[in-house]
Amino acid sequence: MTKPREVVIIGGVAGGMSAATRLRRLDEHARITVLERSGHVSFANCGLPYHVGGVIEDREALLLQTPASLRERFDLDVRVSHEAVRIDRERRVVVSRDLTTGTEREHPYDALVLSPGARPVRPPIPGIGRALTLRDIEDTDALVAATAGARSATVIGGGFIGIELAENLVRRGLRVTVVEATDQVMAPLDPEMVTPVHDRLREHGVHLRLGVSVAEIGADTVTLSDGSTAPAELVVAAVGVRPETALAEAAGLEIGPAGGIAVDPTLRTSDPAIWAVGDAVEKRDGLTHEAVLVPLANTANLQGRMVADLICGRPARLRDVNGTAIVGVFGLQVATTGWNEKRLRAAGRPYRAIHVHPNAHAGYYPGAEQMALKLLVDPVTDAILGAQGVGTDGVDKRIDVISTAMAGGLTASELAGLELAYAPQFGSAKDPVNMLGYLAENLADGVTRTVQWHELADRMAAGAVLLDVRTPAEHAAAPIPGSVLVELDTLRDRLDEIPPGPVIVHCGVGLRAHTAARLLAQHGFDVANLDGGHRTWQAGVR
Amino acid sequence: MTKPREVVIIGGVAGGMSAATRLRRLDEHARITVLERSGHVSFANCGLPYHVGGVIEDREALLLQTPASLRERFDLDVRVSHEAVRIDRERRVVVSRDLTTGTEREHPYDALVLSPGARPVRPPIPGIGRALTLRDIEDTDALVAATAGARSATVIGGGFIGIELAENLVRRGLRVTVVEATDQVMAPLDPEMVTPVHDRLREHGVHLRLGVSVAEIGADTVTLSDGSTAPAELVVAAVGVRPETALAEAAGLEIGPAGGIAVDPTLRTSDPAIWAVGDAVEKRDGLTHEAVLVPLANTANLQGRMVADLICGRPARLRDVNGTAIVGVFGLQVATTGWNEKRLRAAGRPYRAIHVHPNAHAGYYPGAEQMALKLLVDPVTDAILGAQGVGTDGVDKRIDVISTAMAGGLTASELAGLELAYAPQFGSAKDPVNMLGYLAENLADGVTRTVQWHELADRMAAGAVLLDVRTPAEHAAAPIPGSVLVELDTLRDRLDEIPPGPVIVHCGVGLRAHTAARLLAQHGFDVANLDGGHRTWQAGVR
Ligand SMILES: Cc1cc2nc3c(=O)[nH]c(=O)nc-3n(C[C@H](O)[C@H](O)[C@H](O)COP(=O)(O)OP(=O)(O)OC[C@H]3O[C@@H](n4cnc5c(N)ncnc54)[C@H](O)[C@@H]3O)c2cc1C
Ligand SMILES: Cc1cc2nc3c(=O)[nH]c(=O)nc-3n(C[C@H](O)[C@H](O)[C@H](O)COP(=O)(O)OP(=O)(O)OC[C@H]3O[C@@H](n4cnc5c(N)ncnc54)[C@H](O)[C@@H]3O)c2cc1C
Ligand SMILES: CC(C)(COP(=O)(O)OP(=O)(O)OC[C@H]1O[C@@H](n2cnc3c(N)ncnc32)[C@H](O)[C@@H]1OP(=O)(O)O)[C@@H](O)C(=O)NCCC(=O)NCCS
Ligand SMILES: CC(C)(COP(=O)(O)OP(=O)(O)OC[C@H]1O[C@@H](n2cnc3c(N)ncnc32)[C@H](O)[C@@H]1OP(=O)(O)O)[C@@H](O)C(=O)NCCC(=O)NCCS
Repeated sequence: MTKPREVVIIGGVAGGMSAATRLRRLDEHARITVLERSGHVSFANCGLPYHVGGVIEDREALLLQTPASLRERFDLDVRVSHEAVRIDRERRVVVSRDLTTGTEREHPYDALVLSPGARPVRPPIPGIGRALTLRDIEDTDALVAATAGARSATVIGGGFIGIELAENLVRRGLRVTVVEATDQVMAPLDPEMVTPVHDRLREHGVHLRLGVSVAEIGADTVTLSDGSTAPAELVVAAVGVRPETALAEAAGLEIGPAGGIAVDPTLRTSDPAIWAVGDAVEKRDGLTHEAVLVPLANTANLQGRMVADLICGRPARLRDVNGTAIVGVFGLQVATTGWNEKRLRAAGRPYRAIHVHPNAHAGYYPGAEQMALKLLVDPVTDAILGAQGVGTDGVDKRIDVISTAMAGGLTASELAGLELAYAPQFGSAKDPVNMLGYLAENLADGVTRTVQWHELADRMAAGAVLLDVRTPAEHAAAPIPGSVLVELDTLRDRLDEIPPGPVIVHCGVGLRAHTAARLLAQHGFDVANLDGGHRTWQAGVR
Repeated sequence: MTKPREVVIIGGVAGGMSAATRLRRLDEHARITVLERSGHVSFANCGLPYHVGGVIEDREALLLQTPASLRERFDLDVRVSHEAVRIDRERRVVVSRDLTTGTEREHPYDALVLSPGARPVRPPIPGIGRALTLRDIEDTDALVAATAGARSATVIGGGFIGIELAENLVRRGLRVTVVEATDQVMAPLDPEMVTPVHDRLREHGVHLRLGVSVAEIGADTVTLSDGSTAPAELVVAAVGVRPETALAEAAGLEIGPAGGIAVDPTLRTSDPAIWAVGDAVEKRDGLTHEAVLVPLANTANLQGRMVADLICGRPARLRDVNGTAIVGVFGLQVATTGWNEKRLRAAGRPYRAIHVHPNAHAGYYPGAEQMALKLLVDPVTDAILGAQGVGTDGVDKRIDVISTAMAGGLTASELAGLELAYAPQFGSAKDPVNMLGYLAENLADGVTRTVQWHELADRMAAGAVLLDVRTPAEHAAAPIPGSVLVELDTLRDRLDEIPPGPVIVHCGVGLRAHTAARLLAQHGFDVANLDGGHRTWQAGVR
């Protein structure tokens, strides 16, 4: 019998433990050691905020496996409270330190897997020592303990985790302030898409402080860069995460341009005996193939499983990533995939933006809620570059469908032809995703032209007439300044009222104005539709 | 100015009216006439059962447009209660009859669009004259009227519409019997997938009479083929629909092998001046490219819009169809796409079946409900052939994702790598669809072998040992007869207890048994996993 393969895995959660279990299934005889610095393995990181909020009441529910259960089922040697402190690449040995005893020990390996994850950034603010962060069970316990008796909390950072925390601290009855240095929460959303998220947070009592930063953390308040203060018996820092690269760096492994451990498409680091996965490594962007950091559980789990295959000599190759993500915000679903407009613009990449506000299911069936969906399209190839969705229902489905379409290489126009399951409770005969396809096709074919919400003012200043084709009541209730009302159903008879020169039509969401635009275009007008209608414009300019 | 294009459209609902509105947007100057036999156009067929049940209370909500609104907005000449009775292809004229006055009239056309839909089949049963059917608003009104005062109803046919009707008649307080000649409702589901649907219907008081047919319809009962009777103050026939081809046939247009109007990939009938769309036409099957009937709204709407483009000389080409469909059954979501196992087997096509029972979202987050998902895979190409899902939550999403993957030509194994939006309320780090991909990959790579529920008895009879690796409590509560219990977590130490020869392992859903199977295989056993575990087996054998 040949000598069993010795595998050491550093990090015992999403990537690391997925690697360990798959490895065992592929190689019953391997000796597999998992080193985990914290006191727990296989825990549900993504559930931690919800335990803080009491939604997941039972702490045990977060612990999917224990060292004992992993020993029994998978014959894994799992050591919690064991930090990997050094990698001796020449001797192929990892040195661990038992954090309870301080004892160091060597673990020889044939293959080493790094899945150390990422660590929360602690911004260098005076008083930051008092701020808590959230990454593991210990952090969660500390946070739960700290909420007891506290009446106020300030969350620094309006990213996914910051927002989840804000919601859950509100659930705990705290007065919550979120301080975000940029002028919006959730950077993956474009500004006009984030407006309903801001609204939702405020409706639920979250105090949003945008465009300011925390200058100093005091005893029970924080002082902001504009001199104001916010109550903060509790302070949580959630300003993002940085790959855990210290150990890899110390071992002389290559760190990539984005600051993560560099791996090739087979997850090998610059040392062929060392693989790395998860939040700690750089991925390749789906659009540019450049190195990016995408700290998400789906990818970490996938890579963890894949690395086991690769170690066992089975073929596997990484896909580029789009970073599909979702977060719940007081019942609102906020999901994204691929690139957003800000990023495309900053990169100087041409794109088309499309906004729709369809119902999650047929409008004639009770309970239909409108969502906002945005699609970004390559104007030359018609490729889907990204999408964003915000709404109370069915946003997850549409973003997953679009993400899948991207994986399958479907063009934006091809979304029109997707066969999506329709009954009135679940969708529409023209599903929101189909509708995006129709709009994309119309733009690609030149059937219609659109103006974006942020272009409107300039166009009007340059002389374009803005025509509101909604009903008089809608117009009266919420006009766009400078617009002229000609209701769609009367338009054909009132063409002579429309002044010469460029016309921009708008309605509530863009649908009626599309019909108006086609009508006018065929009567010789130079016309464009205000993309997403009043709703997108309103969300953008606010 | 050139003479405006004259277009006549027969049928004013999904396909016909989508054609009319798009046509107007493409050609402001066309003269567009829509002939509709019933008293209404643009109504929500798919909502009709829910109006019967009172879920959609307001009848007006079903009427998305009226002739007047379509005149105003789209300048359409819409004539309800006008039946197209004859097509004179030589003179390019349609003859309509005003059903209220009996007056006939000619409508010349340059282009004619047929979107006459399908009509409910009326089985030739003595007494059928009393049976109602459901296709349009008039039918709905009649049905609503008939439910008033009625205490019992028998629905003939357990297809999608029959089941929707059963649910809605229960909502009306009627005692409902569904009579279905085959031994299951919802033919698109395989037998082991339909079990929870049968359960659900029975739990809600629906009397399912499977494997019998209606022999005679009496005054307030029906007599079944086994001599029994069912109360039936109301009788509804829902045994499927047949394309409305009479007019086309009379005009000498080609009817295809599946019994629908034959069209080419540009929706042209055998007469180049006549196009046809929707339920009345044959589509091409996604798998075999053969002619099939797929009477669904998504496709009808798509084709309606497309035919307008084609008439205007714009390029467009039909895709083959997979027939993605969904129906709600007392809160259960039942969805399918592509082919099922029955059909594959009948066609002699090789396939692999995969069953999983994942949670709709992370198990550690409250409210996670298990669903049943089945994937059918081509064993040679790894192509996805079809999928079925049943559950209370998130089934629609998974079927749409799989349908999209099929459209994008992704293989079953590639489902593993899909980036699906994950937060604990919405999915899992390994989403159900990813999980299907993992299983497909394991089968494709020979990492695992499976036995299907319907193969188990034969395998055991031939000497295979069935090993239950669940806990003793699970085994005791619901054993598979003849199985031997060796709990997974003790398996490694008890290998000597396992008799030689072929072993089949099983657990609750297949997951633990997968780990057991890998363990045993590497210890030299000839082992296979019972696909879908106890749950699929149980659903299948019942
Ligand atoms: C609060 C929170 C909410 C989240 N919500 C979501 C969500 O909703 N959706 C989503 O997709 N993703 C979410 N994520 C991200 C997701 O959890 C990560 O992408 C995923 O866990 C990364 O897996 P990983 O194996 O790379 O790292 P981790 O799962 O973080 O595991 C790394 C482990 O390595 C250990 N470690 C590090 N260095 C050493 C060392 N030197 N020695 C020994 N052990 C070491 C760490 O203690 C850690 O436990 C969330 C994360 C957090 C913290
Ligand atoms: C009760 C019910 C529930 C349904 N639920 C769903 C669902 O949940 N999901 C789904 O995808 N699909 C569903 N469908 C199917 C869907 O409604 C059809 O696929 C779709 O309407 C087909 O469009 P069509 O234009 O081909 O035919 P239709 O929408 O039926 O329109 C055809 C019209 O043509 C008219 N007509 C026929 N012959 C003539 C003539 N000679 N002269 C003038 N007019 C004529 C008819 O009166 C009819 O109104 C359901 C159908 C019904 C009846
Ligand atoms: C759970 C964990 C220990 C991995 O365990 P695992 O046994 O590999 O994974 P799962 O329980 O998800 O099951 C997946 C395996 O079961 C198989 N499987 C799943 N359902 C199956 C079924 N019905 N029949 C047969 N096999 C099945 C899959 O194919 C896969 O096996 P494979 O890798 O050999 O192909 C690891 O992912 C972990 O620690 N997760 C918690 C941390 C985490 O993910 N955090 C971030 C998100 S909160
Ligand atoms: C509703 C009906 C009259 C069609 O009207 P329609 O105006 O073509 O269709 P919709 O209201 O769905 O809108 C789709 C159009 O608006 C455009 N559109 C939708 N949202 C838009 C937005 N936000 N901005 C710009 N354009 C938009 C689409 O591109 C499409 O136009 P196009 O065909 O020129 O590309 C017809 O489908 C019908 O009668 N339906 C009811 C019957 C039925 O479908 N039954 C079966 C299911 S219950």
